[in-house]
Amino acid sequence: MTTPVSQTATKNRQWLLASRPVGAPTISDFNFVATDIPTPKEGEVLLRTVYLSLDPYMRGRMSDAKSYAEPVAINDVMVGGAVCVVEKSHHSDYSEGEWVVAFAGWQDYSVSDGTNLLKLGKNPTMPSYALGVLGMPGLTAYMGLLDIGQPQAGETVVVGAATGAVGSLVGQIAKLQGCKVVGIAGGAEKCEFAVQTLGFDACLDHTRDDLAAQLAQVCDAGINVYFENVGGKVFDAVLPLLNSKARIPLCGLISQYNATQLPDGPDRLSLLMGNLLIKRIKMQGFIVFDDYGHRYQEFSQAMQAWLAEGKIHYREDRVEGFEQTAAAFIGLLTGQNFGKLVVRVGPDAL
Amino acid sequence: MTTPVSQTATKNRQWLLASRPVGAPTISDFNFVATDIPTPKEGEVLLRTVYLSLDPYMRGRMSDAKSYAEPVAINDVMVGGAVCVVEKSHHSDYSEGEWVVAFAGWQDYSVSDGTNLLKLGKNPTMPSYALGVLGMPGLTAYMGLLDIGQPQAGETVVVGAATGAVGSLVGQIAKLQGCKVVGIAGGAEKCEFAVQTLGFDACLDHTRDDLAAQLAQVCDAGINVYFENVGGKVFDAVLPLLNSKARIPLCGLISQYNATQLPDGPDRLSLLMGNLLIKRIKMQGFIVFDDYGHRYQEFSQAMQAWLAEGKIHYREDRVEGFEQTAAAFIGLLTGQNFGKLVVRVGPDAL
Repeated sequence: MTTPVSQTATKNRQWLLASRPVGAPTISDFNFVATDIPTPKEGEVLLRTVYLSLDPYMRGRMSDAKSYAEPVAINDVMVGGAVCVVEKSHHSDYSEGEWVVAFAGWQDYSVSDGTNLLKLGKNPTMPSYALGVLGMPGLTAYMGLLDIGQPQAGETVVVGAATGAVGSLVGQIAKLQGCKVVGIAGGAEKCEFAVQTLGFDACLDHTRDDLAAQLAQVCDAGINVYFENVGGKVFDAVLPLLNSKARIPLCGLISQYNATQLPDGPDRLSLLMGNLLIKRIKMQGFIVFDDYGHRYQEFSQAMQAWLAEGKIHYREDRVEGFEQTAAAFIGLLTGQNFGKLVVRVGPDAL
Repeated sequence: MTTPVSQTATKNRQWLLASRPVGAPTISDFNFVATDIPTPKEGEVLLRTVYLSLDPYMRGRMSDAKSYAEPVAINDVMVGGAVCVVEKSHHSDYSEGEWVVAFAGWQDYSVSDGTNLLKLGKNPTMPSYALGVLGMPGLTAYMGLLDIGQPQAGETVVVGAATGAVGSLVGQIAKLQGCKVVGIAGGAEKCEFAVQTLGFDACLDHTRDDLAAQLAQVCDAGINVYFENVGGKVFDAVLPLLNSKARIPLCGLISQYNATQLPDGPDRLSLLMGNLLIKRIKMQGFIVFDDYGHRYQEFSQAMQAWLAEGKIHYREDRVEGFEQTAAAFIGLLTGQNFGKLVVRVGPDAL
């Protein structure tokens, strides 16, 4: 591999999609290359990536199954949100040295015409937070929980991937609403963190066999809101415990993303619908920027206030080294990360 | 059988639940008996049933599976809504000869303390309408479609059991909202009725093999609202055609009520959830009187106005003879009825 290990001012390192994975992605599904840095035209800016966000939805973009967004083409750069610095500007709204959030992809350099950039100023304090607690995962947690889930004080809220980017925020926001919060996570260390640091009332380890029994014991008054970002056996444990009028915001199904075929029967589709009917449950999928992008300011103000007051704890799992990106992403899909996964692609100033 | 064929002033005919059906109910699951007429105490009224409503939800009450309502006990009277006349009153709010809607059950005579009675006056014009277009099925159609489904002009609305009590109203209300309406019904005669008389844009016959292909052809712009009261293969045909942001009010699953076990695999539970996620769909179960009973007046005014203006067509399938009740109910579960199923239990005046 001739791709430079560090970010340079002369080459554009890129992670390309080499092949569509069948099941779990492997390193060979990606190609790490270096090309020339693109040249911005009039009305465009050249962006240099400092932090890249890795998120479960990217698995969907690697497949060509019909989805809400176009798949990444073979040999195209993998998509993703990033925190970038404006290196060159031919756009009147942006000046060099300014930081922005951009959908820049898995690469050192990208060109933008200025649409869909979020300004972070010249000297942002914690710029990578714009990819997590103050960005897409934060908005997902906030809107999915509050707008679709509508938790009431005293109700029981359950969330999977409890120490992940979204789940950790869902649980903490639910605590701020006065709810009882039960998390589900993989491993004792994460569970302890959810309770001790994030303040969840309980957190169960889904790697143990008796998840359904334990969840029933902890949720002794049933479940009013299940924030669904996992699916699979976590949902199976939740389903029988849902109360009448329960709400299920549905933002992800990470346990299913690597599945190559449907599970064996029986076919529980009618069982699920029967439960939704009998218990008068609302289940609603959402794609955060499509459905709630227009409410970003409202979210951002609330979250910044909570952060300033110390009411929200935020944990980043920061990978140093852009060459680690594919491995880190593969690990994300099996829960190897602990906190919001972010790749440090380059230095603050090159 | 010594039970009188006609309603009398001396005996109370009753349909009891004899045994819990496994699969489709049979006549032997019911017992048609005659007992003494109950005596109302102070503060109570004696009601005589004139019309009895037969509705799919009653199948659920015959089972002891956990549901939103208690099952009917073995040897208890089958439950159901009815239009009744007050025969004796020891209650200051009710006088003899007054008509009411009551949850009187499958019997000639019942006693009420006056709670949950809906007054219809002394000389109602079409009293049986209070069991259909102006009653529970009407409220179900109106609230499920408008409050959960929120159809917009130009959108495509699909409804199963298209000539049934609920489906026929869903489609007509959707037409009044400016929607394209596609019904699904069993048999050519019902489909023709849905288009010619109810004004649906199209109606497909689910007894034909090519339902999925035909539905895809008719719904050439996809489906925005699917009002779910059927389930099974109708839902299977609808699922791939649902548009982004589709809404699925879920009020019934009549095709599943007689099922004794889940269908063979694969297990499509995750497939359904994946579709809800990717397409940002809302699916919401509701039980009409629990969720919308407080909005009955709003519904009633709108529906009476539509009826008066001739904008809503309402078809009753009236069974003459209380002794036919169980057979008629069994037929309802397989779509033998054509319109809202009502039993004439007794004469207007005895």
